[in-house]
Amino acid sequence: MEFIRLLEKSKEETYSKICVGLDLAIYGSRDKYVMDKNQDKTSTLLSLITDLSNHCCAFKINRQYILDLTFNDIKQVTAKAHEFKRPIIIDHKLSDIGSTNQQALFHMKQEGFDALTASPFPGNVKEVCSDGHNYDLAVIILALMSNPDAIWMKNSFFETVPIFQHHCRLANKYADGIVVGATGHVTVKDLAIIKEEISDKVILSPGIGAQGGNIHHVLSYFENDVIFNVGRGVIYQKSPKNALKEYNQQIQKLLGN
Amino acid sequence: MEFIRLLEKSKEETYSKICVGLDLAIYGSRDKYVMDKNQDKTSTLLSLITDLSNHCCAFKINRQYILDLTFNDIKQVTAKAHEFKRPIIIDHKLSDIGSTNQQALFHMKQEGFDALTASPFPGNVKEVCSDGHNYDLAVIILALMSNPDAIWMKNSFFETVPIFQHHCRLANKYADGIVVGATGHVTVKDLAIIKEEISDKVILSPGIGAQGGNIHHVLSYFENDVIFNVGRGVIYQKSPKNALKEYNQQIQKLLGN
Repeated sequence: MEFIRLLEKSKEETYSKICVGLDLAIYGSRDKYVMDKNQDKTSTLLSLITDLSNHCCAFKINRQYILDLTFNDIKQVTAKAHEFKRPIIIDHKLSDIGSTNQQALFHMKQEGFDALTASPFPGNVKEVCSDGHNYDLAVIILALMSNPDAIWMKNSFFETVPIFQHHCRLANKYADGIVVGATGHVTVKDLAIIKEEISDKVILSPGIGAQGGNIHHVLSYFENDVIFNVGRGVIYQKSPKNALKEYNQQIQKLLGN
Repeated sequence: MEFIRLLEKSKEETYSKICVGLDLAIYGSRDKYVMDKNQDKTSTLLSLITDLSNHCCAFKINRQYILDLTFNDIKQVTAKAHEFKRPIIIDHKLSDIGSTNQQALFHMKQEGFDALTASPFPGNVKEVCSDGHNYDLAVIILALMSNPDAIWMKNSFFETVPIFQHHCRLANKYADGIVVGATGHVTVKDLAIIKEEISDKVILSPGIGAQGGNIHHVLSYFENDVIFNVGRGVIYQKSPKNALKEYNQQIQKLLGN
């Protein structure tokens, strides 16, 4: 699978476990963490990729932040990541019935993405993974999200296990990775449960940086497999490259390097 | 709320309970239910709206089918629906953390949609509804989806109630409508539970037509509030208008008119 190959090679080359979240909000859409009035989104994305590729192992773009871009804009962005041999994930949280998911996968492949996030909510984890693999797209399943309200996934049960554990089991069978937040409601106990269920999958962990999450615990459980997504904590900083390097150093320090 | 106003007026004008799903798959993306090689998606969408507006109460487009359209294409499509005074729903299944959902809502409003579907999976139903309402966007929450795998929502529990019932309760408090499939796994017993939990909300019911669902039961529980989504059963037929009229007649017959 191209995604896994690119990711492993990028980790080796950069010693980085950071996936940069390229989520640029257009002027007027919110007060903080927003682009300047005349800033062009596509060219900013291309510059960020050029600037940061040597210091990160992957890029991720959330679909909700590129609803205003054209197919050709998006294709330029994914091609730029590939120019630097970095994989690029579309954080789509795909969540539909089979025939509709297939349309999304068709378009994502054409856009040039290597992997996507998908929600287990429709119950069709097996199907969406298999359909994704038909396009050589890696599928990363939402297991335990970073937002505080996601705590319901721990308090609800499928048979005897919490929902998030059930979704980890499905992901371990069919998917290539899972999303596990690095934020406060995700406890060491939760991580231990996930560790039991999951082997040899990419652990995509959002929540550090602007969401206030903590690298330490997730890193101690998933040292080899985790990639931490940082968006606002890098791309809106005065020097995105320096901010990214600081995250890398922080991780290397925790690893005792 | 503009969506509710447009929908009620459209139902009065057309005596139709059908929401037409404008989900056009581009050539090469699948074998069946697909556009012709040189067919243009935007102009086909505009013609369908012009052709069908007098016989349906709403339109719905699934986001996964317009990933290839530009912002301006989409704006033309929503403007055409409004030219005929029909509301238009973006079936987005929005499923993200708050700050990201807000970006999506910002773009949907600019695209010209009146309502969206959102997933309760991230646990933030209250937040996404409130944020949607800030843009005068109606929010329709996935309660019990139409695909067979969605049966897990009946077999999993939040406290003592099935997950779908829990999500109905949240939707009844904060949202403007719910999605309830009209397909086989949705039983009369499920509909009775939903009826208990939900009052005065739009019931958007997909699954009839190509998915093989049955109008009868959903209609008997939600006669006044239901709108049935039909996509492939209308838009790929030789005469979409005649197919739509047949669905209308079928419903009127079941209502004893």
